[in-house]
Amino acid sequence: MTEADVTHDAFLGGLLYLLQPRSGYRAGLDAVLLSACVKAKKGQSVLELGCGAGAAILCLGTRVPGLTLVGVERNAGYAALARRNGGELLEVVQADLTELPIELRQRQFDHVLANPPFYDRSASVASDDVAREAARGAETALKDWVKVAAKRLAPKGQMHLIHLAQYLPDILAALPSGIGSVEVLPLAARAGRDPDRVILRARKNGRAAFKLHAPLVLHQGERHETDRPDYTPAVNEVLKSGAALRF
Amino acid sequence: MTEADVTHDAFLGGLLYLLQPRSGYRAGLDAVLLSACVKAKKGQSVLELGCGAGAAILCLGTRVPGLTLVGVERNAGYAALARRNGGELLEVVQADLTELPIELRQRQFDHVLANPPFYDRSASVASDDVAREAARGAETALKDWVKVAAKRLAPKGQMHLIHLAQYLPDILAALPSGIGSVEVLPLAARAGRDPDRVILRARKNGRAAFKLHAPLVLHQGERHETDRPDYTPAVNEVLKSGAALRF
Repeated sequence: MTEADVTHDAFLGGLLYLLQPRSGYRAGLDAVLLSACVKAKKGQSVLELGCGAGAAILCLGTRVPGLTLVGVERNAGYAALARRNGGELLEVVQADLTELPIELRQRQFDHVLANPPFYDRSASVASDDVAREAARGAETALKDWVKVAAKRLAPKGQMHLIHLAQYLPDILAALPSGIGSVEVLPLAARAGRDPDRVILRARKNGRAAFKLHAPLVLHQGERHETDRPDYTPAVNEVLKSGAALRF
Repeated sequence: MTEADVTHDAFLGGLLYLLQPRSGYRAGLDAVLLSACVKAKKGQSVLELGCGAGAAILCLGTRVPGLTLVGVERNAGYAALARRNGGELLEVVQADLTELPIELRQRQFDHVLANPPFYDRSASVASDDVAREAARGAETALKDWVKVAAKRLAPKGQMHLIHLAQYLPDILAALPSGIGSVEVLPLAARAGRDPDRVILRARKNGRAAFKLHAPLVLHQGERHETDRPDYTPAVNEVLKSGAALRF
């Protein structure tokens, strides 16, 4: 990637600047909200699977100083950007998450986060065999994301995933035994709308009952009425001031 | 049960009156909301597992005329009340749902509903072995409710369950293959509160993506402020006029 192919974008109201590819996957709201949910404390270790250019894990590192941060990214271009973005703060491992190097497979983390790629199943027509194959492929992959995240957790470690709400049953089904205290925070574009994404938290050795939270509403009002962002106060605090999201 | 042990209670704003035991399980909001979600049409067949005195299935029969209604109830006292409440409208089979008589096992239904007993897992302390055993027992039982409901569905038939939100993963895990198009309607006491119950809909041979709906809010305002019921308009329409709940 040449310098013309990247942009320099502000996160958390300017607390963090990141290089991102001009085209392709650009981190946004999801990565920031995911990082805001992680209850990490100084001295703890954090692994992000599929870190892209590093937005989620570096937002977390910005909010909570003194963390050991490791990002895994399969794509060489994104991995290079993550290295530049993270500098000394972030160790970037270029690898497929299903083929982690032995050094990483020997490590456990207090927190694992992931923002796996989205494939919208409802967008694929049931009669379209190609789309169905792709959706099936995505399900398999999602299972891997969940299983690898769970495997890398230290005792009592927590994992956080953000994904389409339609895949919640697949994520729950992929959680291995020994992972519990599952909590789900649905994300709804507006009050009263059906949530389209969920943030899922789970704990290694957790035994608490499953908890479904009230949806986090992202935008104010019934519809988008002006050209200006209309985030709800809680979301705005996260995006503009790097606040934590309590749930 | 003598006549002194039963009460005569109005449902759906007086469209339906039911005999219920003065003590023990008394149907309430949950049974009525469950029945309001069922998209039954004249001429279709409906089975309720664990029908108690018949509140849910008779509310449905009141809203939608011309249904064939069958209720299964293990407890002889409740089964007798259901017979008296249902009269000619409701066929009551006294049986354990895991030991349905062969005649019933040979029948399939367009709709199956169930309001299984609640065991609140969060109320049992993890260190209390007795409570833990009870919770485990409840899980096994819940699995049976889901599996028997699924088995009795006709092709494209729909099942509806209402249960504690904390057991949503258990319900999803118990759904056999061949049951899909799962939709979940969370029920929240008040706006912004975490939902404590869910209504789950699933369809035999369904292939649509899982759908998580916005919570149905039961009560208006931030807290209970007067002695009078403070149901939200949508819930009030169901309770007082026998309206359907669209989701």
